[in-house]
Amino acid sequence: MRLVISGFGTVGQGFSEVLDIRKELLKERYGSDVKIVAAFDSKSYAMGSNGLDPLRLVAAKKETGKVGKNVLKSGIDVLNSVEYDILIEVSPTNIDNGGEGLKNITHALEHGKDVITVNKGPLALKFSELKKIAKKNKSQFRFEGSVGGAMPIINLCSENLVGERIRSIRGIFNGTCNFILSRMDSGLPFEQALKEAQQMGYAETDPTYDIEGIDTACKVVILANSVFSRKVTIRDVKITGITEVNEEAVALASDNNMVIRLIGEVSEDRLEVSPRLIPKGHPLGISGTLNKAQIITDLAGPITISGRGAGRIETASAILSDLIAIIDSRRF
Amino acid sequence: MRLVISGFGTVGQGFSEVLDIRKELLKERYGSDVKIVAAFDSKSYAMGSNGLDPLRLVAAKKETGKVGKNVLKSGIDVLNSVEYDILIEVSPTNIDNGGEGLKNITHALEHGKDVITVNKGPLALKFSELKKIAKKNKSQFRFEGSVGGAMPIINLCSENLVGERIRSIRGIFNGTCNFILSRMDSGLPFEQALKEAQQMGYAETDPTYDIEGIDTACKVVILANSVFSRKVTIRDVKITGITEVNEEAVALASDNNMVIRLIGEVSEDRLEVSPRLIPKGHPLGISGTLNKAQIITDLAGPITISGRGAGRIETASAILSDLIAIIDSRRF
Repeated sequence: MRLVISGFGTVGQGFSEVLDIRKELLKERYGSDVKIVAAFDSKSYAMGSNGLDPLRLVAAKKETGKVGKNVLKSGIDVLNSVEYDILIEVSPTNIDNGGEGLKNITHALEHGKDVITVNKGPLALKFSELKKIAKKNKSQFRFEGSVGGAMPIINLCSENLVGERIRSIRGIFNGTCNFILSRMDSGLPFEQALKEAQQMGYAETDPTYDIEGIDTACKVVILANSVFSRKVTIRDVKITGITEVNEEAVALASDNNMVIRLIGEVSEDRLEVSPRLIPKGHPLGISGTLNKAQIITDLAGPITISGRGAGRIETASAILSDLIAIIDSRRF
Repeated sequence: MRLVISGFGTVGQGFSEVLDIRKELLKERYGSDVKIVAAFDSKSYAMGSNGLDPLRLVAAKKETGKVGKNVLKSGIDVLNSVEYDILIEVSPTNIDNGGEGLKNITHALEHGKDVITVNKGPLALKFSELKKIAKKNKSQFRFEGSVGGAMPIINLCSENLVGERIRSIRGIFNGTCNFILSRMDSGLPFEQALKEAQQMGYAETDPTYDIEGIDTACKVVILANSVFSRKVTIRDVKITGITEVNEEAVALASDNNMVIRLIGEVSEDRLEVSPRLIPKGHPLGISGTLNKAQIITDLAGPITISGRGAGRIETASAILSDLIAIIDSRRF
């Protein structure tokens, strides 16, 4: 299996490290079949049909800011000039038009390649189109890491729970917001909790995507399309972020033995992101940066899962699970 | 796919009901391929190569105490006289020698049939032997419902998390014990909490398997063998039940902001069932009858899952997920 990695930021580097950490396992299962034949970032690319050393790519990126020595014209150029089987698309999320990620994914699927991505932009904007292209070209299209990071929810719902009628999924899908709201439980004002989240590295310098609920909305859209077979985009989500949650609201909630948490909800007829009152002790009333989801099914009843929603190695581990699933299905 | 159901108690009946509830889904995916060609309990059997109506089997069992009109000599006789593809083995658990369930499973696997079971006896006593027979005969052997009921843990660990190194699994695997201990948190003595569990239908008249920790130990053994590739039986588990947990211990724990819960733990070098002090608010400090497991992995970090550990339809839903996995893998 020849891999191309498009995007070489945190997740691309984390995935390369994971390929190295798991080289024994991969070798044991698949011989020397799994190799990176190309990697590119926004400015450069590296290519090698005999396989590129994943750790050297990471080192090059860290030292020079570029993954390879060649100047990138476009990702499509690279995809057109290398023989490969699977595209790992982990370039930055663009929620306005899908950006380069959408172009790369589309191109790969159209050419019968399998695609694994955690890029929420293309998934939140063009899910059903991409699924259609994948089906037509018999490509596999997987995106476990796009929702909940290392928390296995997509494949859990669409594989393990395939015999269930899933009625709804409600959850905490953004660790940054949950950290901020948890700190507000201790009496901190929003601005101060946000600053703390930034100092801890949980929130970005521009935290808009997180605190406005957009990141959670993307995840809700991905779940709606992939688990509920709906055909929706981010424009269909009713979104309220956490910027209006103030100390008074948190204190009032606490007086009533509740906490406020940013909940994403999807069902057959709902698609919503909003801060909600959650009873203390309720499975979704957790504190900290974990992601957590409650899946309501008709036969199995409620199933709750939680895990780390972010992190370079954690997200990369979700890509690895998709990768193994694809290789296994292609080999037997 | 022609099914034989061996055992027609709660789970066998529940599974038949689930087959009926999901007949549309199964028809849509597989045409009229999925049918029951035989079912037997300890005394009787029904057989029909064109397919038996699942709800009629349930009705017959309820009205007459027997699933069929024919007198059963042995389950093996039935298996020898019908053409089938998958054995659903749900006869009563026998933890001393595996009982009829072990004979049925062995026979089916030796004849190249796939087997789905929730019968903990054969799994806790003869796991590696059964796996070997399955491998030799290219049979599939699945048992999702044997641990955690509707909580999807076996397939989660061995499929979704196949790229992880799982360091340990700790969990609450017996809802009866957890209910009793939860009630003791409110000050009830053990005997009274047990009586309440029996009145609510959570505990059996003879609750030994549950309260002595044997049921949890079986589950720990199944996880050790299937997830950690260990070769252990129930005799290798260090087991302490909850019968010695008294009001004083619970009160003392509470004074230290802790609760006592029966925890099953398995790792590379541990295999243990014991009541443990759990901090209030800890993921395993839950109250009620749910099952919950914390899976510690090297890349993804900690993953926690919970669901209903028992119930006729819930356990049957786990069998359904195994059934769909087998049919899908056999068809493509």
